[in-house]
Amino acid sequence: MTASLTQSTELTGKMIIAGKAVQGSGTAVRGIDPSTGKTLEPAYNHGDLTDVDAAASAASAAFGDYRATTSETRAQFLDAIADNIAALGDTLIQRAVAESGLPVGRITGEVGRTTGQLRLFASVLREGSWNGARIDPALPDRAPLPRADIRQRKVALGPVAVFGASNFPLAFSVAGGDTASALAAGCPVIVKAHDAHPGTSELVGRAISDAVVSTGMPSGTFSLLYGSGRTLGTALVTDPRVKAVGFTGSRSGGTALVAAAAGRREPIPVYAEMSSINPVFVLDKALETRGADLGRAFVASLTLGSGQFCTNPGLVIAVDGAGLDSFVDAARVAVSETAPTTMLTPNIASSYAEGVDKLSKSATEVARGTETDAPNACRAALFVTDADTFLTSEVEQEEVFGASSLIVKCTDAQQVRDVASLLEGQLTATIHVDDDDHAEAGKLLSVLELKAGRILFDGWPTGVEVGHAMVHGGPFPATSNSATTSVGSLAIERFLRPVAYQDVPTALLPSAIADGNPDKIWRRIDGQLTQD
Amino acid sequence: MTASLTQSTELTGKMIIAGKAVQGSGTAVRGIDPSTGKTLEPAYNHGDLTDVDAAASAASAAFGDYRATTSETRAQFLDAIADNIAALGDTLIQRAVAESGLPVGRITGEVGRTTGQLRLFASVLREGSWNGARIDPALPDRAPLPRADIRQRKVALGPVAVFGASNFPLAFSVAGGDTASALAAGCPVIVKAHDAHPGTSELVGRAISDAVVSTGMPSGTFSLLYGSGRTLGTALVTDPRVKAVGFTGSRSGGTALVAAAAGRREPIPVYAEMSSINPVFVLDKALETRGADLGRAFVASLTLGSGQFCTNPGLVIAVDGAGLDSFVDAARVAVSETAPTTMLTPNIASSYAEGVDKLSKSATEVARGTETDAPNACRAALFVTDADTFLTSEVEQEEVFGASSLIVKCTDAQQVRDVASLLEGQLTATIHVDDDDHAEAGKLLSVLELKAGRILFDGWPTGVEVGHAMVHGGPFPATSNSATTSVGSLAIERFLRPVAYQDVPTALLPSAIADGNPDKIWRRIDGQLTQD
Repeated sequence: MTASLTQSTELTGKMIIAGKAVQGSGTAVRGIDPSTGKTLEPAYNHGDLTDVDAAASAASAAFGDYRATTSETRAQFLDAIADNIAALGDTLIQRAVAESGLPVGRITGEVGRTTGQLRLFASVLREGSWNGARIDPALPDRAPLPRADIRQRKVALGPVAVFGASNFPLAFSVAGGDTASALAAGCPVIVKAHDAHPGTSELVGRAISDAVVSTGMPSGTFSLLYGSGRTLGTALVTDPRVKAVGFTGSRSGGTALVAAAAGRREPIPVYAEMSSINPVFVLDKALETRGADLGRAFVASLTLGSGQFCTNPGLVIAVDGAGLDSFVDAARVAVSETAPTTMLTPNIASSYAEGVDKLSKSATEVARGTETDAPNACRAALFVTDADTFLTSEVEQEEVFGASSLIVKCTDAQQVRDVASLLEGQLTATIHVDDDDHAEAGKLLSVLELKAGRILFDGWPTGVEVGHAMVHGGPFPATSNSATTSVGSLAIERFLRPVAYQDVPTALLPSAIADGNPDKIWRRIDGQLTQD
Repeated sequence: MTASLTQSTELTGKMIIAGKAVQGSGTAVRGIDPSTGKTLEPAYNHGDLTDVDAAASAASAAFGDYRATTSETRAQFLDAIADNIAALGDTLIQRAVAESGLPVGRITGEVGRTTGQLRLFASVLREGSWNGARIDPALPDRAPLPRADIRQRKVALGPVAVFGASNFPLAFSVAGGDTASALAAGCPVIVKAHDAHPGTSELVGRAISDAVVSTGMPSGTFSLLYGSGRTLGTALVTDPRVKAVGFTGSRSGGTALVAAAAGRREPIPVYAEMSSINPVFVLDKALETRGADLGRAFVASLTLGSGQFCTNPGLVIAVDGAGLDSFVDAARVAVSETAPTTMLTPNIASSYAEGVDKLSKSATEVARGTETDAPNACRAALFVTDADTFLTSEVEQEEVFGASSLIVKCTDAQQVRDVASLLEGQLTATIHVDDDDHAEAGKLLSVLELKAGRILFDGWPTGVEVGHAMVHGGPFPATSNSATTSVGSLAIERFLRPVAYQDVPTALLPSAIADGNPDKIWRRIDGQLTQD
């Protein structure tokens, strides 16, 4: 019935509910090529509450069988999704480029990152530590009371709602990190596609749906819906069968979902990645020896992808002086020579223009990128302010999504640390140093460890490696839950919870915690890690 | 100044703020011996917002130095607290018995559990896996882009507010599991003592405070406040310097704290252990072969400690028939022969009486314990109902804190599973089986894995082992966060979050993720566990 969805690359404009193509009944939306402003066919009609109910019902029905699959089975499923996405080749790349205005090179890289994420979680499943297996063997002779046999493993939470992001049409969307980690954990996934790239979403959704069929997963393991965040999105988050939510987007969108989830009869976790201005600290000796070089490199990171990254460097903090002057001068030249680039959507482009406008009323403009009449263009923007003004200005501390940044001039190293300690939570914090800056960098590092999910030295925050050690997270408002990450293998833990098994008969023990370690995984026995 | 606090066992009636004895200015409360109704000296005056501010300010000031201590240093601090508590000997036991009405044997055991928990977390610190150390080494030659050096470890969240529980004056109070795990993680702790046992709280608070001094921790590492939950408690949870909350208590109390924490400018996690009725499933063959024995054993668990355990078996679910009749008959006799026992506080005793009264208007009474005129007594209560009534009755599904339980008669095994699947989240679920029940037990197990934090076979849920594999948690309303546990070594994770370090200079790397593994801990390198 659905086995040949990807054999045709013709877009249908339909949702996918448990393997079936379903025509929406609501508002018709179309992709827009932001570089021309032209709409793209076909139309995608938004779904309604009936569709949410159907997807949630199917996910709930699939959950029992899906979570009971072995790690190896789910690993093969994830690999099959990756294969199907890779097989879409140019069809996917061209559609994603058209819907996002992003260059082919960037989209090609993002396809690789997306398939790489799926394969990473396949490897996490095969390695097995995700089970969190622990065994405290019975101590029948312990006095004054014997100890029961107690074992622990992690189980999947249940169906997960994933909200596609605007700025990563692949890596943070239909088969992005949230979907990959939730599916790995054993949770069925219902994706609400982002209206900015409906065709890309359909292609990737069909790639997943085909993998569901080819690897024999229950049909309700995956659904793809189109709809508004306010109605369909809220209905998903408040559906009692949905047990967790993954979201990448704005602070207002994220906090609204958190509130909706908290207001349920059974509150559920929302993992929202929201807002970050990603401060960059440039210390004195580094400024002195290579201020101009750093200024130019900073602008390259700032303007990459029109600055439409969650980790875009929106803030530079340094002690005022000749070194910072060199940095600012070089950055001024680089920004003023920056050609305009197309932003993802008309909404994002107009929000960016408004944000820059607001900022220009508080901070001093250093430079703007070149002008243009092209639609949805991003003109880079650089401002400067002093630390006292920054600390009392809400406008200057707010994220402007796009290639806008603010340089905060401080009087001395102590004021740099004061600014750092008063910042809200961040996804990243960056420090540029020379060897002679290490003492000061150490002090700053202990402040920033409490503020950011990732701290990097002598680099730029754009570019998030997908691996085992990555943290793409951080204290509020960077995310709604700082104990987790939305990128990297640790992300699987968001969709699991521990269960203890006490004196469970051998025949009924899950294999991860069975006698003799049949899964051959790392387990903690009486507190000690072992593969025995 | 504070070094000799425990050298005198004379109670002072004062709070402890960063090592200083502070006289409260608010309402005076006194412990009450519930077995006599008599008040105990001295008076403890509630603190006010000034005291919250002083404690939070001291905790915040202490945090930087405290979290920078080594694992071994914090382990010695926890061991010293355990030593100091053990050294209190009879003074502590007598005061806790007087304030709680609990028997000496129970309190003696609870002292052992409390010191055992502290020593468990000392061992967790020494073992080192709590760091969550991960290293993805640089790949300078990777194409198309080189990989940076990325490392991950966990850092402490910040000052933690802990709310003492009424029903465990030691193990879930001033130096209980929440305090032990937060201190282990590197978080200063501010405890709000429970008004039911202020003297016990002072003794234990001084034991901690002395350990702060003797092991050289910063003075703000620990404070002990007295006050009302509504005012002082809310002020603690909403203080911007407090970064997480541990709570054991009622569903209404827990959800109020969760809401207060969510309403902050920077929302913080609240780990609230709240409400559970701990269903016990007795399968057919087990009933057939030993129904009467199980009925008697059930009543022993039900009435233990006046039923004042979070894991008290408040619900029995089984298929109706001769086996269940034997169970009910034996339980009827056992309950009716149960002598009344003193409850913890007048409030708990009157709430229990009200809960039983409400339940008696919906379900059918099977038996009550013997009558008494003693103050604050718990008369055991047993009721029976049918599954259809149970599933539509909010009253029958509500927790009655105390020795009251409800037997739900089902028509068949399918209805047993239906009831299981409609239950709210639970701390525990218990299954009694014979070998011939295994097939049915397997089906039930997969339902219960999604409902409870701990599943036990052929035992009783009261009695929570403190170890590495224990989970004392579960889906809402059992707790506010099912991904964690409040008992056992995994509890440390509640107060930590991961941070990634990218290209951090060797000299500035924390030892847990430094080259050469100086801490000699388990680390995950490129995804593989190793001690190298």
